[in-house]
Amino acid sequence: MTEKIKNVEEMSIWEDAHKMIRKAEREGIETAWDRLEQQTPHCTFGESGVCCRICTMGPCRISKKAPLGVCGADADVIVARNFGRFLAGGAAGHSDHGRDCIEAFHAVAHGETEDYHIKDEAKLLRIAAEHGIETNGREVLDVAKDLADEFFESFGTKRKKTSFLHRVPKKQMETWEKLGIVPRGVDREITEMMHRTHMGCDNDATNTMLHALRMCLADGWAGSMIATELSDILFGTPTPRKAQVNLGVLKKDQVNILVHGHNPIVSEKILEAVNEQEFIDLAKEKGATGINLAGLCCTGNELMMRQGIPMAGNHLMTELAIITGAVELIVVDYQCIMPSLVQVGNCFHTKMVTTADKAKFTGADHVKFEMHNGMEQARKVVRMAIERYSMRDHDRVEIPCEPVDIMTGFSNEALLEALGGTLTPLIDSIKAGKIRGVVGIVGCNNPKYKHDYCNVNLTRELIKKDILVIVTGCVTTAAGKAGLLVPEAIEQAGAGLKEVCGSLGIPPVIHMGSCVDNARILQLAALLANDLGVSISDLPLAASSPEWYSEKAATIGTYAVASGIYTHLGHPPNITGSPVVTNLALNGLDDILGACFAIEPDPFKAADLIDERIKLKRKGLGLEE
Amino acid sequence: MTEKIKNVEEMSIWEDAHKMIRKAEREGIETAWDRLEQQTPHCTFGESGVCCRICTMGPCRISKKAPLGVCGADADVIVARNFGRFLAGGAAGHSDHGRDCIEAFHAVAHGETEDYHIKDEAKLLRIAAEHGIETNGREVLDVAKDLADEFFESFGTKRKKTSFLHRVPKKQMETWEKLGIVPRGVDREITEMMHRTHMGCDNDATNTMLHALRMCLADGWAGSMIATELSDILFGTPTPRKAQVNLGVLKKDQVNILVHGHNPIVSEKILEAVNEQEFIDLAKEKGATGINLAGLCCTGNELMMRQGIPMAGNHLMTELAIITGAVELIVVDYQCIMPSLVQVGNCFHTKMVTTADKAKFTGADHVKFEMHNGMEQARKVVRMAIERYSMRDHDRVEIPCEPVDIMTGFSNEALLEALGGTLTPLIDSIKAGKIRGVVGIVGCNNPKYKHDYCNVNLTRELIKKDILVIVTGCVTTAAGKAGLLVPEAIEQAGAGLKEVCGSLGIPPVIHMGSCVDNARILQLAALLANDLGVSISDLPLAASSPEWYSEKAATIGTYAVASGIYTHLGHPPNITGSPVVTNLALNGLDDILGACFAIEPDPFKAADLIDERIKLKRKGLGLEE
Repeated sequence: MTEKIKNVEEMSIWEDAHKMIRKAEREGIETAWDRLEQQTPHCTFGESGVCCRICTMGPCRISKKAPLGVCGADADVIVARNFGRFLAGGAAGHSDHGRDCIEAFHAVAHGETEDYHIKDEAKLLRIAAEHGIETNGREVLDVAKDLADEFFESFGTKRKKTSFLHRVPKKQMETWEKLGIVPRGVDREITEMMHRTHMGCDNDATNTMLHALRMCLADGWAGSMIATELSDILFGTPTPRKAQVNLGVLKKDQVNILVHGHNPIVSEKILEAVNEQEFIDLAKEKGATGINLAGLCCTGNELMMRQGIPMAGNHLMTELAIITGAVELIVVDYQCIMPSLVQVGNCFHTKMVTTADKAKFTGADHVKFEMHNGMEQARKVVRMAIERYSMRDHDRVEIPCEPVDIMTGFSNEALLEALGGTLTPLIDSIKAGKIRGVVGIVGCNNPKYKHDYCNVNLTRELIKKDILVIVTGCVTTAAGKAGLLVPEAIEQAGAGLKEVCGSLGIPPVIHMGSCVDNARILQLAALLANDLGVSISDLPLAASSPEWYSEKAATIGTYAVASGIYTHLGHPPNITGSPVVTNLALNGLDDILGACFAIEPDPFKAADLIDERIKLKRKGLGLEE
Repeated sequence: MTEKIKNVEEMSIWEDAHKMIRKAEREGIETAWDRLEQQTPHCTFGESGVCCRICTMGPCRISKKAPLGVCGADADVIVARNFGRFLAGGAAGHSDHGRDCIEAFHAVAHGETEDYHIKDEAKLLRIAAEHGIETNGREVLDVAKDLADEFFESFGTKRKKTSFLHRVPKKQMETWEKLGIVPRGVDREITEMMHRTHMGCDNDATNTMLHALRMCLADGWAGSMIATELSDILFGTPTPRKAQVNLGVLKKDQVNILVHGHNPIVSEKILEAVNEQEFIDLAKEKGATGINLAGLCCTGNELMMRQGIPMAGNHLMTELAIITGAVELIVVDYQCIMPSLVQVGNCFHTKMVTTADKAKFTGADHVKFEMHNGMEQARKVVRMAIERYSMRDHDRVEIPCEPVDIMTGFSNEALLEALGGTLTPLIDSIKAGKIRGVVGIVGCNNPKYKHDYCNVNLTRELIKKDILVIVTGCVTTAAGKAGLLVPEAIEQAGAGLKEVCGSLGIPPVIHMGSCVDNARILQLAALLANDLGVSISDLPLAASSPEWYSEKAATIGTYAVASGIYTHLGHPPNITGSPVVTNLALNGLDDILGACFAIEPDPFKAADLIDERIKLKRKGLGLEE
């Protein structure tokens, strides 16, 4: 116990985390760090990807003694199959989220719900026109019906191309066509990956990995992009606004409700409900001073981007948020929600509520959200939270810090507006070397790393080098807590970046949303490439997921690389047992796509690697390094 | 070495297999049995399903020391996630095969190919009418266009129900509706499973398994059924015919070409090409007396059912077929093709040719088959085979036995015709207890079993008990080699079954096709249930896959159970680490579906288990046991 407490500083860079980990230890509550310790050392077959459970002639494990599985698959084939499925999990996550957005949008278009509405009509009309849908003189909902159908078709099997591929720069598309990786249908590519990786199908690692590129492109340019654009249409396109982050956003004397997951369809309704006077009154009746809604993870990002709702924490803070003892209820939709939250909640008065039939948790209450009953169910959840306030043990409450201010809301539309309506100021700054490049830092936490150490330090190092950083997902909270998401952070940036951001009044680190919103970064990259008449792979761009843990992060990395963006990861996926797959990821892809992966756990060295890449690409464009 | 040779009799029940395993040993060629030995003992975490590699906080393994993964998932959640994905692999295999059939059919309908045609117009019109498509006075190809669209929509996301659900008995459908497992779209259910099993989504094992039922139903009643019905429309609905099985179908003095895989789209064209005079002449020019085409695995079943092409062997015979030394070329599409075949081929003059972009094999030649070039590519492949004849080392050729006769071709249409046009004789026989029940024995081989021992003995035991057996997939070859697929096999049947089959002139074991053709069994079960006005789960039916190895087999078993058919497996999938999943499979499903799984490696005990079940169901219908 004493020894563990000694190591708390090594578990996270944050004071709020340290305090809550210590509280967990004191109160005998298990967290991800404890379980990681129990699970260490990890199986080396699993870590290197050479364990196969794809049929019951096995399980097989590749070693010197047994270089082939029972079927004859070697390490390359086994790794490719496993990694193909790993990426399929990620693509399915984002894309099925996108499908849910289409269903909500479809319900609105067809008048099947009173609970959801078209909030950004202009965007709806713009996106419809992009897809060749007639908008002139038509009812908005009729246009919406056509757009819903257009997007549904992107998940089907009849098309040769998904939606949004018109956004892809011409040269990039030519590369994809040459490689045969133009995505046809979102679900189709996922199903085909599952088929290819069945025993006795695709037994050429490179071929399987090429399909992985195609599948991940379907995620990035269709599944995720549809999710992002429809969320904007339904809930509003984000505009710059202030918000706050860290566990200090929880309120000692209020009913605290946390939303966790990814899809704004649930959390937006919860937000509406907490603002209803009836519930505020009820909370006061129960002795609270009000109701406080805060976010976790990507649902938190969605609400923060559009509504300025505070963010309690990122992936590794989700258990710790409950450990404050101040949370009445955590309502979740899906993805990245640790199953342990039910158990941690049970150590307090915290109720966990699930809302999606596709993501139930044993021990949680299930309140099923559907298109036609979103508000009704949201009210039910808020009432449950208020009822639990009286069960709170105030003596166990510890809110470990004060919140930190951030600036959020940078959709591409908002960024363009900040730039005065065109990309020209950004492009001119890039040409002039004031902004040397743009890097998206995205993704997760992983208890194998000191929490947020890499996320924060990589961000800091890059802005020092005059590289504009865009953050999404769990990196947002890290950057926010580090004080990097405010205009004043230009003081930590290089002279050029400081000048440009200073004159625009924007932070040197731009928050662009949740993890599906990495599609915004793709769109921005495409806009830049189109403006310059080059391929995305020619641009001084990079992506990074320093502390990633999830399949979705690997899928995002893969569609970034396939889209021509050099991508750094803090650690490799479970592929190192295959020379073919590893070499392809680190080198081979560069030859065919002009982009590849780089692995580097140290954020300072990673910053140098990215910097070198940006130099190379700047040189290629004839710009000063 | 000596010891291994001693054990050959324990590896397979067949003489052709024994001889070829001995030849492999003599010539130093590795087979699946050798690799199984190298891979034994298997990892117990993998075998029980409690190893998780779904994110990079792990890999995690559940044990007493570590009862939870880093995320907090317990053994139940981990097993459910792994098994959900395992089943997704199977559903994706069959269904993506179905999609390929729709694409071929669509190309025919739209006049985009000269190489494929509507062979069974009557069936096309019948199936179209089933789906409410107007057929009166319309051009056949126009009807085909509509039917292609209908089927494409079954893979999409707009529908609430897939095609063919009108075939499901009313009571069965009510059960599915109550459970929320009516399949919506084939790809959709697969993608949703991949989504649910991402970290932090579905964390309730039962809930995940309910979705597994839905996904597998999408496979059985849509993906597979579409594959079967369209294959009939394109290549002809099978009718009873004679064929031959085992390695004796290879010809010592002919160019031997093997087709392997699943989809008739390639193999039917190869068959046409080998019959072209130009190639027969060329083969003779090269010193052969002709060209001999034989099948393996399910592509073999497809060709045997429709064209009477001989079957060289099932799953464990695929390597051994090459080891005869008499095979010039093996041409494959996808699924269940051991990667080792390339290496075994390299020990001889045998060329392996792949045809599908989704299933390339390192070291094989790739001849890409597309809708518009099927014949051209088939000719290319046949020419390659003939060219290789001169490379054959005749001294190394050993064809180990004489072929065995079988009867094949029992589509439901053919079965109905054999019954005189209606199911009444079959139903009357069931009512009278002459046929006490019907059991489908399907699926694979697995080197963990004595090859075909369970497949053959279970079949024999059941017909002794007056149970009509239907076989598909790799069990076909087993039953055929055992002499059970001929009318004379009634001598091995019980008195009642002998009488009925004898009077109809059909074998007591009916060959219904390939593994996607298990959809024919579903349809037959539905026809019987509808005729009796009951649910499928009320019928004296069962299914069995005694020696299964593949994800597809598990998926088939799951859709059989979900459809109300009690299903025996020789061994459990990798689920035994989860009490919840295991209990659900063996008991819980029975409560909600009237059917469940049973596990029994011994074929005699399995026959008794199935017999008990049939007694129970007969009793339920008010029939004598």
